[in-house]
Amino acid sequence: MTETPEARLEALGLTLPEPPTPVASYVPSVRAGELLWLSGQIPTRDGKLPRTGLVGRDISVEDATEEARYAALNALAQIKAGAGDLSRVKRIVKVQVFVASSEGFHSQPTVANGASELFVEIFGDAGRHARSAVGVAELPLGAPVELDVVVQLGDVPSIFPA
Amino acid sequence: MTETPEARLEALGLTLPEPPTPVASYVPSVRAGELLWLSGQIPTRDGKLPRTGLVGRDISVEDATEEARYAALNALAQIKAGAGDLSRVKRIVKVQVFVASSEGFHSQPTVANGASELFVEIFGDAGRHARSAVGVAELPLGAPVELDVVVQLGDVPSIFPA
Amino acid sequence: MTETPEARLEALGLTLPEPPTPVASYVPSVRAGELLWLSGQIPTRDGKLPRTGLVGRDISVEDATEEARYAALNALAQIKAGAGDLSRVKRIVKVQVFVASSEGFHSQPTVANGASELFVEIFGDAGRHARSAVGVAELPLGAPVELDVVVQLGDVPSIFPA
Repeated sequence: MTETPEARLEALGLTLPEPPTPVASYVPSVRAGELLWLSGQIPTRDGKLPRTGLVGRDISVEDATEEARYAALNALAQIKAGAGDLSRVKRIVKVQVFVASSEGFHSQPTVANGASELFVEIFGDAGRHARSAVGVAELPLGAPVELDVVVQLGDVPSIFPA
Repeated sequence: MTETPEARLEALGLTLPEPPTPVASYVPSVRAGELLWLSGQIPTRDGKLPRTGLVGRDISVEDATEEARYAALNALAQIKAGAGDLSRVKRIVKVQVFVASSEGFHSQPTVANGASELFVEIFGDAGRHARSAVGVAELPLGAPVELDVVVQLGDVPSIFPA
Repeated sequence: MTETPEARLEALGLTLPEPPTPVASYVPSVRAGELLWLSGQIPTRDGKLPRTGLVGRDISVEDATEEARYAALNALAQIKAGAGDLSRVKRIVKVQVFVASSEGFHSQPTVANGASELFVEIFGDAGRHARSAVGVAELPLGAPVELDVVVQLGDVPSIFPA
């Protein structure tokens, strides 16, 4: 039994958001060779950030982990927009997770798992990525987490094992 | 009517600085395959940083945006040094913008536009990049902004539409 | 006279640690084409971080520089695990150095040299990389420094000049 990334999204009850288009002089993603580089993704829903502030002070680690999952969902929408089809993902290569962190907050990896686990749920082994998690001072619009993602695309659509 | 990136620089009244050579065990840029990876660029002029400190506290968002443009100008000088010719740029792939941010400062994207817009002014559509902007605690020498840039090079010099 | 990277490690009295395996949904490294992307490396020894806190407040710049060297040693262990053999390294392409920085600490490049110099000691010119150093608010587990490394691999083992 196999299924597509899109089928996995549906099985998880997840709907890809409309990928927001940056209004500035940058673009949501750039393909160079087989790599697709995304712009930084924050956990907006319908253009809004329900939770803002520093993790560890304003936002709990549990809530921040959920926010990271939403940022990853936005990343999936951008990957689909940039690649045409999630099945063209050969590998999620690298994810940098920037966590807006209060003084003494050191659980950035726990927060980052919210993103990492979604990629594995959707892509299986192809979703297992190299990762770093760092605690930054502030993020755009007060977002608690921002993701930088690099994806390897294949020329032939892949089917991932279920 | 077409023009080269160098002609655009001149039309904008911009002169590329001498690309500073790091004195340490790292180098200004490394080419691997068709990608050119730059070392972090800060907005030095003649080796000096006219404005230092945290954006939002010591430096206004307007001034920081101008600083980001200077950092991008330094990046152009390093791209030219690394690629031989700005016309070999096929695409500005990714720009990470680190903004030294005071507590509660969330306009990193505005600051980052200072860099993004210069790349588009010089390269046209080839300058439209994926981007992330994050607010960090401190930067080397007290710089308000630092850029990490990845560039795709082509084997044949390109002429960009004017 | 030539020697392998492994011989250089031995000449420096360095032993590669067992590369720690992440327990989460990410992996130590991912190869995509000729690039090997590492997960973030912190200066653990036997799974422990002897020094934690912010550089400039809790940790001196000298000690932090030593910590950066340990993080680079862990990176070498991951490169060996991911590439099979350090001799397959064609180039250390990019190193991003995140330094947990206290207010007003601006010597991130000095700290980063602890990592940069080890790469050059081990790989010679192939170890000369593009680099950025930024000061972040906090790092996982209270680590003073974290490295993000991208490596270019060659298909044929290389011998570096001594």
